[in-house]
Amino acid sequence: MYEEFWRESGDAAELVIPGWQTMSYFSDVTNVCWFLEPELDQQVRRLHRTVGNAAVDGYHVIVGTGSTQLFMAALYALSPDAAGDPSASSRQRPTTRSGNQSCLLGRQCFCCDLQSYPAVTDFLRSGLFRWAGDASSFEGDNYIELVCSPNNPDGAIREAVLASEPGAGGKTVHDFAYYWPQYTPITEKADHDIMLFTVSKSTGHAGTRIGWALVKDREVAKKMTKFVELNTIGVSKDSQLRAAKVLGAVSDGYEAKVVGAPRLFDFGRRKMVERWSMLRAAAAASGVFSLPEETSGFCNFTKETAATNPAFAWLRCDGEDVDDCASFLRSHKILTRSGAHFGADPRYVRVSMLDRDDAFDIFVRRLSSLH
Amino acid sequence: MYEEFWRESGDAAELVIPGWQTMSYFSDVTNVCWFLEPELDQQVRRLHRTVGNAAVDGYHVIVGTGSTQLFMAALYALSPDAAGDPSASSRQRPTTRSGNQSCLLGRQCFCCDLQSYPAVTDFLRSGLFRWAGDASSFEGDNYIELVCSPNNPDGAIREAVLASEPGAGGKTVHDFAYYWPQYTPITEKADHDIMLFTVSKSTGHAGTRIGWALVKDREVAKKMTKFVELNTIGVSKDSQLRAAKVLGAVSDGYEAKVVGAPRLFDFGRRKMVERWSMLRAAAAASGVFSLPEETSGFCNFTKETAATNPAFAWLRCDGEDVDDCASFLRSHKILTRSGAHFGADPRYVRVSMLDRDDAFDIFVRRLSSLH
Repeated sequence: MYEEFWRESGDAAELVIPGWQTMSYFSDVTNVCWFLEPELDQQVRRLHRTVGNAAVDGYHVIVGTGSTQLFMAALYALSPDAAGDPSASSRQRPTTRSGNQSCLLGRQCFCCDLQSYPAVTDFLRSGLFRWAGDASSFEGDNYIELVCSPNNPDGAIREAVLASEPGAGGKTVHDFAYYWPQYTPITEKADHDIMLFTVSKSTGHAGTRIGWALVKDREVAKKMTKFVELNTIGVSKDSQLRAAKVLGAVSDGYEAKVVGAPRLFDFGRRKMVERWSMLRAAAAASGVFSLPEETSGFCNFTKETAATNPAFAWLRCDGEDVDDCASFLRSHKILTRSGAHFGADPRYVRVSMLDRDDAFDIFVRRLSSLH
Repeated sequence: MYEEFWRESGDAAELVIPGWQTMSYFSDVTNVCWFLEPELDQQVRRLHRTVGNAAVDGYHVIVGTGSTQLFMAALYALSPDAAGDPSASSRQRPTTRSGNQSCLLGRQCFCCDLQSYPAVTDFLRSGLFRWAGDASSFEGDNYIELVCSPNNPDGAIREAVLASEPGAGGKTVHDFAYYWPQYTPITEKADHDIMLFTVSKSTGHAGTRIGWALVKDREVAKKMTKFVELNTIGVSKDSQLRAAKVLGAVSDGYEAKVVGAPRLFDFGRRKMVERWSMLRAAAAASGVFSLPEETSGFCNFTKETAATNPAFAWLRCDGEDVDDCASFLRSHKILTRSGAHFGADPRYVRVSMLDRDDAFDIFVRRLSSLH
């Protein structure tokens, strides 16, 4: 969807890298995140200040190869064992092994609902953490709760469901991939302990694989940096420079002194409003699909009331003879992701709202013809 | 060291990326490695054909965020549990937990000597694999041996030390980061099951974080791809295009029809010969340091006999009062990495031979003044 915008923006976000540039592993050895390009650090802070969706003062910026890597880095940093020396933790292992079975080996548990994160959490069978399912049915103190808001896949605004006493073992990670004005009104300047963002969802540059975390605590920031160091020895400099260029072009659009720069969030919101209206009309025309109700709020960025326009549609097949919505749609040449992947009823599917125009048009046309 | 070469090569390796390019997660959905840019695939194969250091026909190219990620991907792919469904393996866990303690939970073991890989292997405490120390003292069938040749840190040419019966559990991964003509004569076209390479060591572009694996078996290639998908959802497209451009410029230098293109391996070899000769002279002048003996062989690429010029010097302090060479050198303002990090005697240190000219000159001058 965003390709059209960037094609129209000319060379505002064009990047030129000479053969001899950014050859070193290091970007700024004085920074906690030593592989973060200073230009990206600046542009991340500038954009958050422009949009007002997250606090940046007093935060460390940690860059990752997409926000997936930072999600893992956060789990690593918040797991108590990761900090200490390995021999200490292997000494603990035997005594905790017989402990509470809802929390593997007595270690930090990770809780969240309706996410596609379990595979990422569990694929290495880490002894540090494991996926523990839906947070709302979790009991215990030793957990990491992932709060995804607006939520993937249903677009709902969420807050942590596990209230932890200060000083207890509970910790939260906020995935704010979709907390941008094209998807949702910016109702507050978020200031949680760990907040994750990505260019993939904010500007559309998924192939660049750049995410960033805003991290309040210096020790947590150091451990997350250590994870990325061990996992991939830092993050591509070329991609960081690209992301800095792209984020800079977005901020330019909302800077009074830059005249005529294209405005990404205006474009995105216009597109999303148009697409959601097409989709709702198609679902109504078919009579056999339903969608989450539209919600709205006052957006501090645009200074007007705006509807939520999620990047995914959480579509329900209401037809009585349809148990598996994804299969039903597949038989009509519509590819979606079954609700079952998100721990939900297979009568739900997740549909991307960010495809190219022609693909989205075909999808809507096919959907409206079903009944 | 390579920055000088790329500065002199003008715009041969300059990359221009318009704002709208490479936005998708996908590169080629028909390829096993669906996030590999076709241009990088081509340039990797072209360069290996030019140099003759590795077979590419019949191999899959898997791209990674540096070769570190591919090393982990290989461990994942070669661990028997990673393939099957997770429930099957957790059923096995209780019975294997009390098994052979030299191989954690009865799972695949990983063996290698004198490497800095243990931290990377163990940092997530994976239940799939663990670091098992020096391969030459390992007994058992269920292992993955890492063969690093030329070896880091001592530059020696190595072959697998664990001979496994065909069909048994033993597997090997060849790390060929330094198997390029500037460091060592190219004595054979390697054709092992999994071979790892990286632009960091071949062209000097460490900050680009691009490595690649040549993988013979399609199933292993698929599992390695799956690892990178779960770990970082693919690899930066921008970096891949950069690497393709750089590797293409290197091949151009040795193509008869491209006149006057700069020749990286000639530059690299000239530099390395010069630096090794300076270092040997300095060590001799001081009288208290020794270095591995120079070895040589016939290089099929240059068609002449050439010496090995490792990217690291494996320096020994011979002074009788020096137990810890790294501390001794640090007190004389020379920063090195202690042999202890590689499981070796702390009288050894590893010194990088690839720093910028001015830094290398200072190092050699300081070293020759010690006695």
